[in-house]
Amino acid sequence: MFLTRTEYDRGVNTFSPEGRLFQVEYAIEAIKLGSTAIGVKTREGVVLAVEKRITSPLLEPSSVEKIMEIDGHIGCAMSGLIADARTLVEHARVETQNHRFSYGEQMTVESTTQALCDLALRFGEGDEESMSRPFGVSLLIAGHDENGPSLYYTDPSGTFWQCNAKAIGSGSEGADSSLQEQFNKDLTLQEAETVAVSILKQVMEEKVTPNNVDIAKVAPAYHLYTPQEVEAVISRL
Amino acid sequence: MFLTRTEYDRGVNTFSPEGRLFQVEYAIEAIKLGSTAIGVKTREGVVLAVEKRITSPLLEPSSVEKIMEIDGHIGCAMSGLIADARTLVEHARVETQNHRFSYGEQMTVESTTQALCDLALRFGEGDEESMSRPFGVSLLIAGHDENGPSLYYTDPSGTFWQCNAKAIGSGSEGADSSLQEQFNKDLTLQEAETVAVSILKQVMEEKVTPNNVDIAKVAPAYHLYTPQEVEAVISRL
Amino acid sequence: MFLTRTEYDRGVNTFSPEGRLFQVEYAIEAIKLGSTAIGVKTREGVVLAVEKRITSPLLEPSSVEKIMEIDGHIGCAMSGLIADARTLVEHARVETQNHRFSYGEQMTVESTTQALCDLALRFGEGDEESMSRPFGVSLLIAGHDENGPSLYYTDPSGTFWQCNAKAIGSGSEGADSSLQEQFNKDLTLQEAETVAVSILKQVMEEKVTPNNVDIAKVAPAYHLYTPQEVEAVISRL
Amino acid sequence: MFLTRTEYDRGVNTFSPEGRLFQVEYAIEAIKLGSTAIGVKTREGVVLAVEKRITSPLLEPSSVEKIMEIDGHIGCAMSGLIADARTLVEHARVETQNHRFSYGEQMTVESTTQALCDLALRFGEGDEESMSRPFGVSLLIAGHDENGPSLYYTDPSGTFWQCNAKAIGSGSEGADSSLQEQFNKDLTLQEAETVAVSILKQVMEEKVTPNNVDIAKVAPAYHLYTPQEVEAVISRL
Amino acid sequence: MFLTRTEYDRGVNTFSPEGRLFQVEYAIEAIKLGSTAIGVKTREGVVLAVEKRITSPLLEPSSVEKIMEIDGHIGCAMSGLIADARTLVEHARVETQNHRFSYGEQMTVESTTQALCDLALRFGEGDEESMSRPFGVSLLIAGHDENGPSLYYTDPSGTFWQCNAKAIGSGSEGADSSLQEQFNKDLTLQEAETVAVSILKQVMEEKVTPNNVDIAKVAPAYHLYTPQEVEAVISRL
Amino acid sequence: MFLTRTEYDRGVNTFSPEGRLFQVEYAIEAIKLGSTAIGVKTREGVVLAVEKRITSPLLEPSSVEKIMEIDGHIGCAMSGLIADARTLVEHARVETQNHRFSYGEQMTVESTTQALCDLALRFGEGDEESMSRPFGVSLLIAGHDENGPSLYYTDPSGTFWQCNAKAIGSGSEGADSSLQEQFNKDLTLQEAETVAVSILKQVMEEKVTPNNVDIAKVAPAYHLYTPQEVEAVISRL
Amino acid sequence: MFLTRTEYDRGVNTFSPEGRLFQVEYAIEAIKLGSTAIGVKTREGVVLAVEKRITSPLLEPSSVEKIMEIDGHIGCAMSGLIADARTLVEHARVETQNHRFSYGEQMTVESTTQALCDLALRFGEGDEESMSRPFGVSLLIAGHDENGPSLYYTDPSGTFWQCNAKAIGSGSEGADSSLQEQFNKDLTLQEAETVAVSILKQVMEEKVTPNNVDIAKVAPAYHLYTPQEVEAVISRL
Repeated sequence: MFLTRTEYDRGVNTFSPEGRLFQVEYAIEAIKLGSTAIGVKTREGVVLAVEKRITSPLLEPSSVEKIMEIDGHIGCAMSGLIADARTLVEHARVETQNHRFSYGEQMTVESTTQALCDLALRFGEGDEESMSRPFGVSLLIAGHDENGPSLYYTDPSGTFWQCNAKAIGSGSEGADSSLQEQFNKDLTLQEAETVAVSILKQVMEEKVTPNNVDIAKVAPAYHLYTPQEVEAVISRL
Repeated sequence: MFLTRTEYDRGVNTFSPEGRLFQVEYAIEAIKLGSTAIGVKTREGVVLAVEKRITSPLLEPSSVEKIMEIDGHIGCAMSGLIADARTLVEHARVETQNHRFSYGEQMTVESTTQALCDLALRFGEGDEESMSRPFGVSLLIAGHDENGPSLYYTDPSGTFWQCNAKAIGSGSEGADSSLQEQFNKDLTLQEAETVAVSILKQVMEEKVTPNNVDIAKVAPAYHLYTPQEVEAVISRL
Repeated sequence: MFLTRTEYDRGVNTFSPEGRLFQVEYAIEAIKLGSTAIGVKTREGVVLAVEKRITSPLLEPSSVEKIMEIDGHIGCAMSGLIADARTLVEHARVETQNHRFSYGEQMTVESTTQALCDLALRFGEGDEESMSRPFGVSLLIAGHDENGPSLYYTDPSGTFWQCNAKAIGSGSEGADSSLQEQFNKDLTLQEAETVAVSILKQVMEEKVTPNNVDIAKVAPAYHLYTPQEVEAVISRL
Repeated sequence: MFLTRTEYDRGVNTFSPEGRLFQVEYAIEAIKLGSTAIGVKTREGVVLAVEKRITSPLLEPSSVEKIMEIDGHIGCAMSGLIADARTLVEHARVETQNHRFSYGEQMTVESTTQALCDLALRFGEGDEESMSRPFGVSLLIAGHDENGPSLYYTDPSGTFWQCNAKAIGSGSEGADSSLQEQFNKDLTLQEAETVAVSILKQVMEEKVTPNNVDIAKVAPAYHLYTPQEVEAVISRL
Repeated sequence: MFLTRTEYDRGVNTFSPEGRLFQVEYAIEAIKLGSTAIGVKTREGVVLAVEKRITSPLLEPSSVEKIMEIDGHIGCAMSGLIADARTLVEHARVETQNHRFSYGEQMTVESTTQALCDLALRFGEGDEESMSRPFGVSLLIAGHDENGPSLYYTDPSGTFWQCNAKAIGSGSEGADSSLQEQFNKDLTLQEAETVAVSILKQVMEEKVTPNNVDIAKVAPAYHLYTPQEVEAVISRL
Repeated sequence: MFLTRTEYDRGVNTFSPEGRLFQVEYAIEAIKLGSTAIGVKTREGVVLAVEKRITSPLLEPSSVEKIMEIDGHIGCAMSGLIADARTLVEHARVETQNHRFSYGEQMTVESTTQALCDLALRFGEGDEESMSRPFGVSLLIAGHDENGPSLYYTDPSGTFWQCNAKAIGSGSEGADSSLQEQFNKDLTLQEAETVAVSILKQVMEEKVTPNNVDIAKVAPAYHLYTPQEVEAVISRL
Repeated sequence: MFLTRTEYDRGVNTFSPEGRLFQVEYAIEAIKLGSTAIGVKTREGVVLAVEKRITSPLLEPSSVEKIMEIDGHIGCAMSGLIADARTLVEHARVETQNHRFSYGEQMTVESTTQALCDLALRFGEGDEESMSRPFGVSLLIAGHDENGPSLYYTDPSGTFWQCNAKAIGSGSEGADSSLQEQFNKDLTLQEAETVAVSILKQVMEEKVTPNNVDIAKVAPAYHLYTPQEVEAVISRL
């Protein structure tokens, strides 16, 4: 079966006889190689927590950015090819700034997510901004707007879903199961922090420290936790 | 036979010796992998009903959009690659708005469908808006204009047909048979709702709930049912 | 022999060692898969009759258009890929309108046919309007101008011929033989209607009804028969 | 040996190890599949005679054009892909008209032939007017200018030669031998008509009639024979 | 396994079934063939030290540049394809100059690194400045700005990390281990010089001389050591 | 060995592992299939003599042009693809005319040769005027300018050499040997005519006549010999 | 091993699994097929000496140019594809002229070499001036500017090195060894002439004569030796 598959999986935009786009599916595999990221939505706001793989003690942990601010009210966690993620985030930042400039108000979280996915969808089309292959990255987009807090999950096909909680990356399967058990709509933000980091701890092979975990919240403004704040969450586990 | 076929099926626009365009046929296969959608036309208006596959309890059901508004008098249900459908719907929305702006009247349902299929047909042509592969999506377009209610069905080749009732997606074969038995031109809109959802129920593997089914009508204006309205239809079954 | 052939038949514009263009020949095969269409020229005008394959009783027969008006004095019947035919017809409509606007007179049937074939010929050339593959459609173009009635037949290579009578599509072989037996230059328009529909009846597998047959005439203006008029012709058989 | 050849013969512009351009050679094969055409030059003018393959009695013989006027003093007969020939002839018509408009005099036959071959030579170059493959057609160009009558022969490589007499198409080998026997420089135009049509008769499988043969002369103006004039020549054989 | 891999590794931007981009991974191999370079960050500034392979005694050692100035406050050491490195450095020089011109202040080290990686990331995209393959080079970027000294490490995928110390090139594995043992945050600049050159000495096969080693510091200005200054460091070992 | 070669010889601009450009070498083979041409330089001027292959007695010998004028003081003989030669000669004619127009003086023979080779070199580069493959032709360029008479030889790689005497085409090997024996710098122009034609006679399979040989001289003006002048040279042998 | 290599060596810009760019390496092979060239730097200036392969006694030796002037203070010797070298030299001539025109001073030798290598590096990028393959040529660039005499060596990858002495071409291996033995920084220009030509003599198969050797110096102006001057150097050996 593998032999047959290889006939169709190198053209970025070629359907296989079963109607599948293999290059998109392979890009999704790239994410399964990535570090784990978790998002949890509460009534107070959204919490993002990511594993950072610090391959050498000489690496500056703060330079391994797996959570980024898009706008004052939107942040995202990522898993997969980091350079691809940067391109998407940079695009989203320009879109949100242009929106505020043109309309005098912040862009909604859904519109921002849509703009980002529009770019992701057009891979292989030869546009100015689009890439010649699918973006090999998934994002968890946390935001807060007139509709309250929201959490979106995007994949390399340019599709997105709204979630209450979601895990991506190499440990996503186990983490998603744990999230289904532990999530309920009445979690406080602090409880969500504990849930996210304790699940991250389960899927990571190392001890959890402020060096290898990043946490951020959008509640209602984006805030990346300081090492001290991360330490505080870890100590609550 | 399979070996011979593979010689011709990767170029997006290459005829096989039998005069077939395999990439279009494979895109049609993509739709058979999609969730089921059903449309039923009555004298009062058109009903659309779709299955929503909620893969995780943490997913926000309302963010899985399989029915979208194109214009105040036109909506559509989709099956296949959702990101592709969004591109087509967005294109149709711009066309209908431009038409109203230029001519001071709403675009007819047929013209809207034609505009949408024109874009779908030009895959592989390197145009600004067209894609480098066929759109992997089928639409059921429901509308109401000076000719009364109408229901169109489009496929990835850019062809469209007008129908009284039609099912698309993985359960379309069984659903189409049931529609032929249960449809008649004198159905009321309420009866059409019942027919559509009861057939959807047959082809779905799960229990039907407001979480995994969406319903919309164009009668004569587009309206997406609230969970309460969906619940009401389900309870009538 | 088949193996050798496959070396040359995927490039849209590559000659085989015997000097053949296989992609054009395969497009011609696409037409042999299409529904049958028949044209008959008389001194009074030209009759076109086509088979419509209504795959489901829920399909609106009038939305399966196999005969289309190009201009007030020109119509055409088609067999093959319908979406391709629409592109050609749309192109011809623009050409005839531009001609009337620029010169204050109607375009001749031959010039219209030539304009349509010029577009068909330039497949694979990367032009604005041309396609990247041959158009998979044949047309029977019926018209009436200062030279009286005329009937043209076009194929995917961009070549055209003037005919007295011609059949295209899956039943064309048998239908052409019958036409040679039954055609003579003194047929009245009504006799031509009978000849066309009776031959169509022979090659169709179903009973002939106003639902699965369309008839049009150009005598001297284009007119698509109403179901009642079609019924009248059928009843004369 | 065949296997080796296939390595080099699909790129339109790739030399084989022996220094050959196979796509041009294959285009030349396309002409050997075509109907036979003959040209004979006399002191009074040039005669062109072509075989017309009327595949069906319902075809209008006059619509099978194998001889075309380029300008008032130049005509051509063709063998090979007719749609390609039309493109070349159309190009030559524009060139001769532009020349007359710009310089107030008719274009010479050699310049016209050169202009036509310049277009043929540039296949595969991506120009506005050029094609992506060699033109699959040979022309016999008959003309009359200040240097008296002349006959040119062009092939798909964009090369041309001036001839006293020449045959092209499927019967060209036998016809060329007969021409070498029967041609002399003192033939009258009427004798040339007889020579051309009698040789055509030898290589055609059917009886020669005004329906399946076209004759034209440039002496000094282009004139396509009426059926009556063709009949007269045939009756002289 | 090797056979399977080769199916995916030639397209510059094609994912393998496991979600890998082989051309980027192969470019990373190009760096493992390069000479070793080491960077060490201290509170006083950053030290860069590189091995220079002088393949012939007739080569001018100073013309083998493996350390280059980007701006007055930024320099970089490189390993891999030197011509590729020059393109990146030239791009960064233009960016830093434009920044100073536009904003009247120096560009931060991180922004400069980001600009350089943006170019590296867009290989295969057909842009004006980007290349059609990944850049086959890694850089150690040393700088000093308002945030104090910093050291960045970039790879061919366009990703970058901030480090306290880092080795690249053929001897990087052994050198990185030694750096982890010998580095601490309280090193003086002079101690860092000694650490860098003594580790370089371990991984080089030849005796260390001012001819085959270059040293530079950014503390806070970029300075490339003279042969005498290099000699002084070597003599301290 | 042949199998290995075929891996590299179809891309127009791909080096083989031995550093060879096979498409250029194959184009050079095209010239070995061509008719023989000979050039001889004397103090009085340059003589060019070419074999003309008259494949049919019905061909007009004067229309087989193997020697062409470039400018009043420059002519050239060719061997290989004649249509390619015409493109090069036409380019050189425009260059020499532009030069005279711009600078009021004739272009030197070397500059003309250089201009012609610049075009030949840029095959495969997608320029306006350049071709997508090497030009399959060699030229002997004879001229006379302020430096006296000169003879240049060009090949498909765009390289040129100045010669005292040179033969190209199918008989070039034997002809070059004979030229080395018979050439000396003190030949008169008439002796050069005799040498050139007598060597041509050796390598031709037919009897030499004014019909199958062309002669030209540049001494100091270009002059193509009339049949009578050619006859006179032949009769001297 | 050879089979594996062939998978990666035809794309001009594709990395092999070991991180190599084979097309560049093959272009370097093209230079090993070329004639030998030698450069020697002294305090007084730089000497260039090249072997000229005069394949026929009828070739004009002075038309085989292997040493060319770039600007009044810069010259270069070449080995490999001469037509490629001409393109690079022509580019460098334009750059040096533009520099003098814009800044009123001569371009430095290093800047000139850099400009030339920038063009060489960008092969395969589709730029206006760049080629679609690596330039198959190496240059020895001799110059004299405010920094005194200098000698640069460039290769097809667009990399350059400054040297005291260097040999390129088919005899470069032996010649480089001899140069290492015989070179010292105190050579006079006359001694350098003797060293260069005597080493050239060792690697050439023929007797050294003014016909098959060219010599030039830049001291401080470019000067190509006359046959008499070359003879004088040879007679000193």
